[in-house]
Formats: sequence, structure tokens, C-alpha cells
Amino acid sequence: MVISPDSRTVSTDVVVFTIRDERLQVLLVRRPREPYAGFWALPGGLVHDREDLDDCAARVLRQKASVAGVYLEQLYTFGRPDRDPRGRVVTVTYYALAPVARLGGALMTDTDARCWLPVDDLPALAFDHAEIVALAHQRLAAKLEYSTIALQFMGERFTLSELQCVYEVILGESLDKRNFRRRLRGLRCIEETGEWFRGGSHRPARLYRVRRPGQVEIFK
Amino acid sequence: MVISPDSRTVSTDVVVFTIRDERLQVLLVRRPREPYAGFWALPGGLVHDREDLDDCAARVLRQKASVAGVYLEQLYTFGRPDRDPRGRVVTVTYYALAPVARLGGALMTDTDARCWLPVDDLPALAFDHAEIVALAHQRLAAKLEYSTIALQFMGERFTLSELQCVYEVILGESLDKRNFRRRLRGLRCIEETGEWFRGGSHRPARLYRVRRPGQVEIFK
Repeated sequence: MVISPDSRTVSTDVVVFTIRDERLQVLLVRRPREPYAGFWALPGGLVHDREDLDDCAARVLRQKASVAGVYLEQLYTFGRPDRDPRGRVVTVTYYALAPVARLGGALMTDTDARCWLPVDDLPALAFDHAEIVALAHQRLAAKLEYSTIALQFMGERFTLSELQCVYEVILGESLDKRNFRRRLRGLRCIEETGEWFRGGSHRPARLYRVRRPGQVEIFK
Repeated sequence: MVISPDSRTVSTDVVVFTIRDERLQVLLVRRPREPYAGFWALPGGLVHDREDLDDCAARVLRQKASVAGVYLEQLYTFGRPDRDPRGRVVTVTYYALAPVARLGGALMTDTDARCWLPVDDLPALAFDHAEIVALAHQRLAAKLEYSTIALQFMGERFTLSELQCVYEVILGESLDKRNFRRRLRGLRCIEETGEWFRGGSHRPARLYRVRRPGQVEIFK
């Protein structure tokens, strides 16, 4: 990519979150060439001529992360004049929530070109991508407080312990079980399925589902 | 402005809110030329070559709205390919909160080139600016629930009734006084000054101030 000094180039970069091994992880791709050759970076790409920003982010997700049909939201636009040594690139960033169940085994396998790494243990990233990941993590954690966004990580049926685990992994702290369940009731976002999960030596646990399947209300 | 079809142009547009006549109002400027000649629009401008996005928004605010030193936050980036008939313009939008006391009399006077209008009674605006104003209003209302953002509209000392009025004006609904005060205490953001406001035939009312002046904590 050659960028003339007078042009403005617009890109999107996507922070794809998943929860794997009880840690919040992000998808990174290795940069094959300069600048930052060999560094890990967020999947991203230039916005095409007649392409909407949301469509560009969805395309990046599909082409570079093989992920489709997941929660995707615009995060913030980064545009420091010197953020790309090649010229002025303004990047409209997004974040996506991809439950492991939706990713498939192949995509979860780390390769030399693509890998998942825990947000709290990242190497140096290309450009200002570390800043972008940090902001995405902050936004996601803040949204737990006042929205049902965590349900995006759940399968069709889940126990309250599994849901609490998602909160704890994102927030990076343990939560009081009783407080958590009371707060959850306030959100009125899940309902009992009438079924029970029986596993190992634990007591059976009620299975829940999202209250209105396919229509989770996000309180933006 | 001439935009070649292949270029990407980046602008910022700023939604400047104030509260006047007990209504939430936005600052609009009249477009002197096509497209949308004669329409009201948000103050905005193109991002300069070596200018950061935040700096551009602050400059627009200063040059086109004569406002400085107020709360300013990036809102969202709009980039539909056809949003500007001249060519591709991606606009990084911001919103600003400008208390009347900071604006000065001259700026509050409506002219043929610049005016304040209530958000709930706007004429047709240029481009997608109506959508931008609606999103800014939605963000501001949502933030009332979990942040101390409303304090940005207050003077140095204020009564709880005045603060409640700001909430009601932004939310467009009446609030229960007791619930409001309980919620406010939960935010721990204001403190008594020890002084009282005595006006008209009302009972004297305690005067409050922001707890840590000049350092209001915004829970993003």
C-alpha cells in the first residue's frame, strides 16, 4: 500500500474477543511485511470505495478471521497523524464477540500467521493496536454493568455458574455469587428452560436460555 | 470543496448541547452553499493534514461555535458512501456539553447564520445530521444512568432541584424527587457547600458543588 502524504486513508480494525481456557482472548494476525513486519496485529483492512464502514468491518471479520454472524459494534476512531509510518490512516475500530462454539476447531488452532492470545498477556503489537485492544476491553467490561452483552458468549443453554464465569473472566475478578444473581435478575434477560445440567460430582444445576432468542436487547 | 471520487475525505462534526429555556438545545449553522444550501447543519470541518481528530473537533468548536474548554467526547463515525453528494466523506462525530454560563450572551443570540434549537423540535437538517443529533442525545441520556456527566451543565454551586431539572430536560420526563436523590447519593459526586439558596417564596435550598472541582470522574 502506498499512501500519498495528502490523501486520507480510512481503514477498519476489529478486536475479536473470545473466551478460551477461562481467559478473555483476542484474535491476532502476523504482519507479513513492513511496517512492523513479524509483529502481531489486529485483523483489519482498507475501506472500499462504495463500502459502508459496518460492511467493511464485517468483511474483515469474514476474510481475515473466518467469523460471521457474531455481535459486532463500532468502538472508536483512531486518527493520530503519525499512527502509521506510511501516511495518514484513520482507522474506525470495531469489536466482535465470538463464542468458541461459533468458531469451530480449525479457527481455534493457533498458527504462525494467526493466533489467540489473552488480553492480559499480550506481546508488543503493531501500530496503536495495544491501545485499541485496551479500549475494547474497557468498553466490554463497562457494558457488563448495564447491558446483556455477556450473553453473546453463551451457548443456547447455560448454567448461572457458566454465565458468572464469563463475567469474572472479562472483569478479571471474582464476584459474589448472591450479588451476581440478584443483579442478573434485575436485567430480566434470561429464563429457565426447565432442564437441568448434571455433570460430575456437582449438584444438578438449572439450565437457562436468553429470554427472547435471537433478539437480545442491548441497552446501548 | 472538490472531492475526487477516489479519495477519502475525513471530517469532524460536533453536536454542541446546551440547556436553555429548560430545553435541551443544539447549536446549528446555516449552510451558505450547495449541497443543502440554506439548510441548518452541525458545525464541522475537514481534518487537517497533521491534525489529530480530537484537535480537529476542538478547533471546529472554537472556530464555528466560539466555544472552548467544555466537555468534548467522540461519539461515532458515520461513513455511508452516499452521505455526501460531493464524494466520499467519512465523518468522525463528537458531542460537547456547553453550560449557558460558559457561552456568554452574544453566542446565545440566534442569528440567520447560527442558532440554537431544541433537539425535540428540529427542522430537516443537512446530510445525515439529524441521525447524528439523535445518536448524541441517546448517548447523553444513557450516560446519565451511570456517570456524572450531567454535572457538566451545572455552575459552580447549584441546588438539587436545579440538577434534577437537567436530568429531566435531557430525559424528557419527570423524575421522582426521592428516587432521584437516592440515586444521586449513590454516585457520590457532589457535596454540600454549607451555603443556602434563598429565592422568592420557596424554602431555602442547600447549595451543592462537584466533589472534586475540576476533576469530575466520568465512568466511561
